Order: sequence, then C-alpha cells, then structure tokens
Amino acid sequence: MIRQAGMGSHMPLSGPVMAELERICGKTQVHGGPAQRVAYSFDATFPQDVPDVALTPSCTEEVAAILRIASRERIPVHPRGAGTSLSGGALPLGGGIALSLARMNQILDIDPADTVAVVQPGVVTAELQRAVEAVGLFYPPDPASLSQSTIGGNVACNAGGPRCLKYGVTKDYVLGMTAVLADGRVLTLGGRTIKNVTGYQLGQLLVGSEGSLAVITEVILRLIPLPRQRATAAAYFPALDGASQAVSAIMSSGLLPVTVEMMDAVSINAVEDYLQLGLPRTAEALLLLEQDGNNAALARADVERMAAICREHGATSVTAASTAEERDGLWRARRAVSGALGRVRPNKLGEDVVVPRSQIPAMVRRIRAISEEHGLPVAVFGHAGDGNLHPNILFDRRVAGELERVERAAAAIFGAALALGGTLSGEHGIGSLKREFLEVDLGRDAVDVMRAIKQALDPLGILNPHKVFPERASGGVSAFLRALPSLEGWTPG
Amino acid sequence: MIRQAGMGSHMPLSGPVMAELERICGKTQVHGGPAQRVAYSFDATFPQDVPDVALTPSCTEEVAAILRIASRERIPVHPRGAGTSLSGGALPLGGGIALSLARMNQILDIDPADTVAVVQPGVVTAELQRAVEAVGLFYPPDPASLSQSTIGGNVACNAGGPRCLKYGVTKDYVLGMTAVLADGRVLTLGGRTIKNVTGYQLGQLLVGSEGSLAVITEVILRLIPLPRQRATAAAYFPALDGASQAVSAIMSSGLLPVTVEMMDAVSINAVEDYLQLGLPRTAEALLLLEQDGNNAALARADVERMAAICREHGATSVTAASTAEERDGLWRARRAVSGALGRVRPNKLGEDVVVPRSQIPAMVRRIRAISEEHGLPVAVFGHAGDGNLHPNILFDRRVAGELERVERAAAAIFGAALALGGTLSGEHGIGSLKREFLEVDLGRDAVDVMRAIKQALDPLGILNPHKVFPERASGGVSAFLRALPSLEGWTPG
Repeated sequence: MIRQAGMGSHMPLSGPVMAELERICGKTQVHGGPAQRVAYSFDATFPQDVPDVALTPSCTEEVAAILRIASRERIPVHPRGAGTSLSGGALPLGGGIALSLARMNQILDIDPADTVAVVQPGVVTAELQRAVEAVGLFYPPDPASLSQSTIGGNVACNAGGPRCLKYGVTKDYVLGMTAVLADGRVLTLGGRTIKNVTGYQLGQLLVGSEGSLAVITEVILRLIPLPRQRATAAAYFPALDGASQAVSAIMSSGLLPVTVEMMDAVSINAVEDYLQLGLPRTAEALLLLEQDGNNAALARADVERMAAICREHGATSVTAASTAEERDGLWRARRAVSGALGRVRPNKLGEDVVVPRSQIPAMVRRIRAISEEHGLPVAVFGHAGDGNLHPNILFDRRVAGELERVERAAAAIFGAALALGGTLSGEHGIGSLKREFLEVDLGRDAVDVMRAIKQALDPLGILNPHKVFPERASGGVSAFLRALPSLEGWTPG
Repeated sequence: MIRQAGMGSHMPLSGPVMAELERICGKTQVHGGPAQRVAYSFDATFPQDVPDVALTPSCTEEVAAILRIASRERIPVHPRGAGTSLSGGALPLGGGIALSLARMNQILDIDPADTVAVVQPGVVTAELQRAVEAVGLFYPPDPASLSQSTIGGNVACNAGGPRCLKYGVTKDYVLGMTAVLADGRVLTLGGRTIKNVTGYQLGQLLVGSEGSLAVITEVILRLIPLPRQRATAAAYFPALDGASQAVSAIMSSGLLPVTVEMMDAVSINAVEDYLQLGLPRTAEALLLLEQDGNNAALARADVERMAAICREHGATSVTAASTAEERDGLWRARRAVSGALGRVRPNKLGEDVVVPRSQIPAMVRRIRAISEEHGLPVAVFGHAGDGNLHPNILFDRRVAGELERVERAAAAIFGAALALGGTLSGEHGIGSLKREFLEVDLGRDAVDVMRAIKQALDPLGILNPHKVFPERASGGVSAFLRALPSLEGWTPG
C-alpha cells in the first residue's frame, strides 16, 4: 500500500487499462513499481501523493493516445518536465498518471535563417541555450533551474530569470507549439513566422497555464542574435533601503540593463557561510548589475552609469568584473543563494511576489517588517529590476507554533504585494501552493472566466487537477505546510 | 429606410431600449440619425451594413451598462476605435450597436518610475508616442495608420508596424487591461508589474481577439527607454529576387535591425507618379533599412553592414540619410505606398500574409507568378524583415471578370503563404475578409477550441458577430468583393 496523503483519490487503474498504457508507451516506459511511483511524486516543493503510475511517452501520438484513455477512464493526468516547480505545480495530487515529457528531449531544428528553434518539451533549458549559442543565436529566458528545467515546463509556467529584465520572459519567445487536449485532439498552433494574428492567441493562452489546459509536446521558439559582449559589477550597500532605491533609480534612468539582481544581508551571510567568497558580511545588500550588447565599451559604460547611481544611493563599494572569470565569481554568489539558505534553517518557503518597479523600496521595507513581526528570518533576493522578489521564509517545522507563524507571514507578504499593486507570482506560477490566494489577487469574475476556459478545454477536469484554481477542500500554503510533519510517516510500502 | 446589404438583420431597437441607452450615455452620445449611422458603417475596407445606432460612451461603467442591455435584448455590439481596420473587423455587419470607444481618449498616466502608460482605448497611437517620448520613454508599435488608429484597436488587433521587427508587436507591450464581458461584468487583468504569472494570460487572450471576446476600456502598456540615435538607408535593386535574398541574408547575419521594409517596382512607380521624389523607376525593389540605439556610430555601422549585404545581393545604389530631414525623405516613399496605389487602379485588395524569414524570396517569387497568371498588377511591399508582406492586388471592379480573378489571386496568395509555412495575417487580423480561410490555416480542431472559448466568454454571441470565425453563409473575400458593385446602389434614406 502506498499512502495517499493529500487529495481524495480516484479509482485505482485496472489491469486492462495498465495493459493498454503498456501497449501505447512500451512496457519499459510504464513505471508502476513503488520506488518509481515515489520518484514521480516529487517536485521542488514537498511530495504529498504518489501517482498510480508514471508514463514516459516518446512522441505526440503516444501522449494523445494516453489522454484518450485518461478521458475515457476519468484518470487525472499530471504533466511534468524535470519536476523543478517551486509552486507544487508538478505534484501528482490525488494520484492518477504522472505524465513525464522528459524523454521527449530532442532539439528538432535550430534554423539560423528563420531564427527559430523547434524542440521537444523535455529539452533542458541550458542545453538548448548552449546549442543555439554555438551558432551565434540566443534564447534569453534563464530560470535559476535552467540546468535541470525543461522547455516544456518553462513554457507551461512562463518561466523568467535574471536576463528577462531586458529580454522578456518565456512567453515572448514562443511562436508556436503542438499541444494535446485532454480528449486527445492534437493542436498545431502558430508556426515559424515572427508575426501571426490569425485567430485567437491560443498558444499564448497555453503559456503559463501550468499543464491545466493541454499537454505541450513540441515548441517553436524565437531566437535572437547572441550579444557578443557583457559587463558586470556588484555594488554593496550598508543599508537595504538604499539598495532598493538604487534599483528604482536605475530602472527609471533610461537604462535597460540585462540584469539588476538583489541579495539582502540574510542571503549574503548564508552564501558566505557556505562558500567563503569574501562577501562583505556587514553589507545590508548587494546588487548584481549587468549589461550586454555588441560593444564592450558601451556595455561597460552602462554598468558604470548603474554603479554611479548605486554610489548616489549609498553604495560603499562597487566591484567590476574585467574578465569572464571575475564575472563568474560575481554570479556565483547570486546563484548559490537558494542552496545556501537551506543551511540556515531546516525549512524554507520561497515566494515569488512582484510589485511595480516604483514600489520596490516599499515592498522590501514591508518584508523586513513582516519578518520582525512574525519573528522569522526572511531572506530577500531576486530580480529586483523587474520588481520580482523571492522572499524566502526560513523556519524549522519541528519548533512548536512556527508553522502557523510561517503561514501568517506568507499571507502578509502576499497581502503587501497586492496592496502595492503587485501580484502573487512573477515566474513560479500558482501551482498547488498559492491557489487559495488566486481570487484575492484576480477577483472572482476573472477566476470565473478562467474556470470557464478550463471547462471549455478540459470539461472532465482531468488535466493537472488541484492546481491553479482554489478548491473548497484546499488549504493552499496552509495545507502544504501542515503536510510537512506528516512526511515523517510518509513511506512507500 | 436604410438598406442593410450584408448579414441578416436582427430586430430593430425599440423606443424604450433607445431611451435606456440615452440615459446611460447621454442623449448627445446616442447617434441614430441616418447620416450618423452611415458614418459608423465604415472602416478602411468597404461598408456593407449600417448600424441601428452608434454609441460613444465615456467610461467603463457606461460600456458595462450598454453591454448588459445588449445581452438582455440580444443586440449585436460592434466595438470600434478609429475604424482603420483593413480586414473589415470594425464593420457593423448585420446591424445593431456600433460601439465607438473614440471618446474615451485620455492618457490617464505616464509613469517613468513604473515605466508604464495607462490609457483609455480611444487614445490615438501617435499621440501616446509623442507623449511618452517627451519624457524619454518609447512605445514602439507603429502601425501605418498610427496617426488615426487608437490603442484599443491596436490591442484588439495586436497591431504591428515597421519597428516591430526589433521591438515586437502590440502584445509584447500589454501588461494589463480593463475589459467588459458581453454580459457587462468588468475584468481587471494584469497590472503595472513587468512580470505576472498569476492565473491564465487572459489579457493576452484578449489581445488580437478583434473585439469578439470583450470590450477593452483601459490598457496598461509597458514602455521602454527611448533610443536616442537612428541611422537609415535605402538600397535599390535591379532585381526583386536579389532584394528578397538580401532581406533573408540580413536577418540571418546576426543583426537585429529596427526596420527592413521592402517596396517593389509597382510600389516605387506608384509613389514616384504621386510624389516625384526622384526614386529610380527602373529599380525592381527598394529596401528601407534602419537601426537605432544610444550610439550613433554603432547604429550607422549596423546600417553599413546591411548596405554591404545588399550590395552583395546586387543592390546598385545605397542612399544613407545623414540628417533627420534626409531620413524623413527616405521614409516618405514608404509611407506613401498605400495611398499612391489608390491612384494606379480604382480598387485594391491589400493582404497581410507572413512567411518564415527564410521563405521571403520564395514568397515574393510566388506573388509575382500569381500576378502574371491572373493578369492583375500586384504591388508587393511591407515588413520584409519579419516575413510580413502586403501584396496589394490592384483592379477595377467595373471590368467584366476582374473581380473573379481578384478572388482567385487572393486565394492563391493565401495558399502560397500557407504552403511556405506562413499564415494569413501578420497584423491586420481576420475580421470579416479572411474568415472563410481560417480553418484552412489553423485546422478544424484549433478553430473548434477558439469557438469553445468564444462560447465560454460570449455565450449569446453578441460581440462583433460575423467576424473571425467562418460562417456557412459567409463568403469572406468573395462576399466582400461581390458586395462592391452593389455599393453603387447603397444609399441611406
């Protein structure tokens, strides 16, 4: 018996259905053993339920055949790429089929004449980037998980990243896709053209729909010329407020940098404990600044202008990278934040709020106040230039009362972002963690329209259920956090 | 009696309903007289039906109240901005309410700190651009009609323009909007944040939906820093094929220019007849090349690289602009094409096909062949760098048999674009002119999904009916062309 901790389960898959799935995918691609099922119960949050079976199909036709059976049998289907979701979006809540697209990992075409790439959904983001850069092209979106995350997941979640400040997010690079509807119909949307206004933007509707409307089985991505030069600097601030004001000032100065990333003192010290990079532990904030282009002097000049703005706002030192090695050194600190925070306290809840650029200083101040009010360390880092911050609440679930305080602090952070004209999520998605807050952000009518669209495309509700939309039975963050202690007893057997 | 030439008409509006509409909008904003109704029967194609009444509401609440009545009474509602549609998208087919958003023309906010503009839908595109440029910001989309077209129409049709090659189209600048559903519910979508993955991209679904899903009453637009330098050149080619090959070569050279526009010999000679600019009449093609940025030398260097590529492909002369006046001179020819063509033959049918960049030479050759095969002059111009061409079929509807040849030529042009992996429309939309070709392009399943979404958002089908979707009774281009002779008899009275 495998305990299903979370959502109410559907009927178990029958022997004949399993046999059908084996005929479709091949026996070796139907993963029904206990260890395999546990392996597919994870994403980058915490597992709750295990799937009845995990499938690793090899092509669009197999995905379509699986979905026809799932529709006929009313089996929930949870599409997944590399399982790097930070919102519980890839968790197989309630069981059913975990549909991994990871084996569909071919780059089908990189076309410098059309300036597009055609890829299967399981292609790892960084691998695509290396491949297109080898021919002088560029695919900018760079989520932190890019060495593991897949393009299918990036598209399904409209992934961002540090470079998206200048270049835009995943949606801005999706020209077309092949997608399979819940009933197995295969849609071919968009194409290799740069412009297309023929009919509704169905492809854009699927971008960011978190696997709840269709399963993406092929993507056509726009590429741009690879910028040949980069300039990078790090600015250290004695006061967090000065740093966030500098971000606002940079973004309204007429500059459009590639990257303006922020790390606060909690993040700096966590990284320094971990890596001993020589970061100044007394600094209250670090800004990582980068510009690119085809002219080294101009890129450097932009970084120097940003550095000057930082000094005006109290930065005590600015370190410019003059070699690729030095640049990698500056980036190393930023890239290590998430891992390093795991060493500070045993648990963390990472959020993904966004505010209008002018509200960055106010949001950072409010997060600080929320941290103090609830007696919980909150690391603040993220894509400050976009107003997209990742406040990470650090806690220990074994300490009595701490979980409840984390819940209240998370709700307070959401509330602060909304009060400042912001939103719940900039790049992680709603998944299962934030769905109870969806209506508060979007309003009842907008959520009703989204439900009507969900109903139109997936009338049986089999695609990635218990995600995105609030449910009466759902506890969102609360349910997630409450589930944590029960994981101790969570064993396959 | 006002003759309604096209679609079957609904019941006329009753006196009490007219009185209700007058209470909502104010008596002076309800336009029911014969001349007024004719005035609102036009867009940039040809009128077919006159509306029962035109309304010019002043705010979202009035629009919502109008739509509640329209839903209750099943009155068709045809939203319109400045009526510059080239696809018949703003025609009040079948009568009903012509809902003009033109009076909602306030720029509500230009915020350099958030780098956004908040505008009502009736703001004229060029006026917004002037206003944001005055504070060093930039709103790139530049449809040819920008001096008349409005932001609401631009968003509803996902407008493009010459600069969209580098900067992307309208959809890439829409961060949020207020929109009224057919039943009068008001949605507030997105906001002032640069990133947002909270729920489905409903705003993006409305972009390009051509007024068929909701009425847009406010838009939040992303702005970017205004580039301070521009460099421009025109290259003349003795052979059209050389010019289209040069476009392909430029776009795969690692350059990302602002603009690569093409004009063929028909366009050049039409403009020269009209304006006597001294364009070389023997040239088979002209490419207008532009780069921008913050460094004049770099922008010039990019244009020089483009010029060199043009020479490699046979360009016999390249004229670079060294002053703003010279640049305006080069642009004047391109901007005059559409008007100048109206002088060549009394009628024209302008298309808007797009092909993948690598297929530009093939598409231009096919259009030439179609022109010869059907014995009709076809001017080819447009946004060649994006693969978005505007083949304009020039004809005289009074000549026996010519209309039928135009129909066949238009269908052949669509067919050629699709065969090359392209699509029907890059920036004009489907409207009423191209709807019979929608399924050929997108396939039955995709159109069925679009219908399901239409049904979910506008179950009574009152919003911009007889547009976008094919109808059994519809003749698309054919119906449009066949309607032309009947216009002679088309008089209000």
